[in-house]
Amino acid sequence: MKIEGVLIVDPIDGEYIGNVYIEDGKITDVELSDKKTSFILMPGFIDIHTHGAVGVDFLKSKDWKKVENFFYSQGVTTFFPTSVSTSPEEMKGFLESADEKRMYAHLEGPYISLDKKGAQNPKYIKEATLSEVKELLKHNSLKTITLAPEVNDPKIIEELEKKGVRVSLGHSNAKYSETMEAYRAGSRRITHFPNALRSLHHREIGITGAGLLEDFYLELISDGVHVSKEMIRLIYKIKGCDRIILITDSISATGLEDGEYELGGLKVFVNDGIARLENGTLAGSTLTFSKALKNFKKFTNCNLKCLSKVSSYNAATHMKLHGKGRISKEFDADLVILDQGLSVIEVYKNGEKIFQNS
Amino acid sequence: MKIEGVLIVDPIDGEYIGNVYIEDGKITDVELSDKKTSFILMPGFIDIHTHGAVGVDFLKSKDWKKVENFFYSQGVTTFFPTSVSTSPEEMKGFLESADEKRMYAHLEGPYISLDKKGAQNPKYIKEATLSEVKELLKHNSLKTITLAPEVNDPKIIEELEKKGVRVSLGHSNAKYSETMEAYRAGSRRITHFPNALRSLHHREIGITGAGLLEDFYLELISDGVHVSKEMIRLIYKIKGCDRIILITDSISATGLEDGEYELGGLKVFVNDGIARLENGTLAGSTLTFSKALKNFKKFTNCNLKCLSKVSSYNAATHMKLHGKGRISKEFDADLVILDQGLSVIEVYKNGEKIFQNS
Repeated sequence: MKIEGVLIVDPIDGEYIGNVYIEDGKITDVELSDKKTSFILMPGFIDIHTHGAVGVDFLKSKDWKKVENFFYSQGVTTFFPTSVSTSPEEMKGFLESADEKRMYAHLEGPYISLDKKGAQNPKYIKEATLSEVKELLKHNSLKTITLAPEVNDPKIIEELEKKGVRVSLGHSNAKYSETMEAYRAGSRRITHFPNALRSLHHREIGITGAGLLEDFYLELISDGVHVSKEMIRLIYKIKGCDRIILITDSISATGLEDGEYELGGLKVFVNDGIARLENGTLAGSTLTFSKALKNFKKFTNCNLKCLSKVSSYNAATHMKLHGKGRISKEFDADLVILDQGLSVIEVYKNGEKIFQNS
Repeated sequence: MKIEGVLIVDPIDGEYIGNVYIEDGKITDVELSDKKTSFILMPGFIDIHTHGAVGVDFLKSKDWKKVENFFYSQGVTTFFPTSVSTSPEEMKGFLESADEKRMYAHLEGPYISLDKKGAQNPKYIKEATLSEVKELLKHNSLKTITLAPEVNDPKIIEELEKKGVRVSLGHSNAKYSETMEAYRAGSRRITHFPNALRSLHHREIGITGAGLLEDFYLELISDGVHVSKEMIRLIYKIKGCDRIILITDSISATGLEDGEYELGGLKVFVNDGIARLENGTLAGSTLTFSKALKNFKKFTNCNLKCLSKVSSYNAATHMKLHGKGRISKEFDADLVILDQGLSVIEVYKNGEKIFQNS
């Protein structure tokens, strides 16, 4: 198969008009073209932090197929179903589902800080034990976990990282020194920065300051609500294109009407697309990846090469997803075709067309 | 006169070993040398924010000569006596003293925010009126004023800037939009960043976020107390060498023992060199410029060229002090010789030796 005459955007090689050859789900060749085009080809988007969409909560429902199709329509070819703090049984069931479906799972909690619980259910929040972690490690799907460094032994982080599970710091009141202890233990990411984190103070810059100053990847909800436009500009100014990972943090209400939903056993009210608990705390988002990309471009005025980094390459690199995040020989043919306004036109996964905007 | 075989550090030309020729208080030539040297020659330091030292408070005492000699010993060849919020009479007396002595004056207040008064006396804090400002503008010494944008009409800022008085934003609870209104009115500096400012929030980045994001010069108290080492590293990472201005914010206790002092009619207690009001609020500093320079170098590991920017060139550029802040033909021969540890060895002002470390 051949995708002809598109503006290829690769996070390393940059932008050029070309053709892409695909065989057996892989990119077999790319070549330059001298055609004019109004279509953009980027690596399929990777969303490492989503709790669900179109009525499906990954913790509560097994019908992940439905949400899959929705994500494809947004250009997302790889996504990490993400839990919230819940009972050990439900967490186990969630991981088993992900194991069966051969998907990557993200556990957001329960090893987080009560002080920074955000919209997570305090009932389930606790400190990790090594034996619990060893149980979790039996699940092949477990790819990443969000925990608060100040409430857990750094040995937990070391153990997880050693076994290939990326530890992201989040829902945390950690000081700078506590954050850096986790860094030395192997953690290199911060969850939905800077939401649910100890805020920056000029005499204790805390985990927010550490995220800006040190070599962490930062998950970013680019909706202009969780993080203001100016804050996104500031994060971009400081971190550049190489350390930002766009996420949606989407909940089951995403792609549906305003109304009443649930997250981790807590009621969530969605008004004008903004999801909050009854007390006003933001509770995930209803952001789509496509919209996140458009917002980030609008807020920062970055170039397409940068967009391909924040939408796939950085996530693939950090998560060690070999074969993903580039448009280059031998990479997976996970591709999204966009128009000039960055709207999704066609999506391919392993060389198969899985979405066509009609 | 000739200063021979020193490592010349110029903020534009960088570092090179050379000789400097001086006549009539000016640098008449610089030339390369092939000598080895262990001495560093930098433009004399400029401190645009100091309330006094060695027992002298610029508001309370007319014996500015005493403090002058102390500053010279720290490598400071130009300093701006700085007031705090006080009565109109005392402010007038202060400006008259500065007029007489042909010095540059900095008014820190009284047009600041009560919410962010820091160690300033609330009794004197108020909104500026155009007629008051016109009275102030009669003083030739008035070179800069710190005010809070959210409590003053932007027209006040425009008027001051039009007349050559640089407006610095400080002691302020301003939101991002209020800060940018002041920017558009001509303000380009923020006072002792980020002390006594609305703090950064990810949904309202405020004046602190605006300082980091936009093209403001930032005054910085590099003592590791007002601003932590990590915060200084972060500010340096974001702003670089070109928009940081080191200041001491020193008070009369500087260069003296711990004990009880006064600032703007408020009691100040100095313990271990840290000056606080009775309620614990930081009240200026006892930092010397020489120490500020050493700290900044230690915290950021910047090069000498960068140090010459943050210690003189940026202040000279921002304040339009023609002839200051460089080691180059036709510039004033305001110079400081340092050893490898950045300790002050000799100081020259207008070509005259005004300090010799014996």
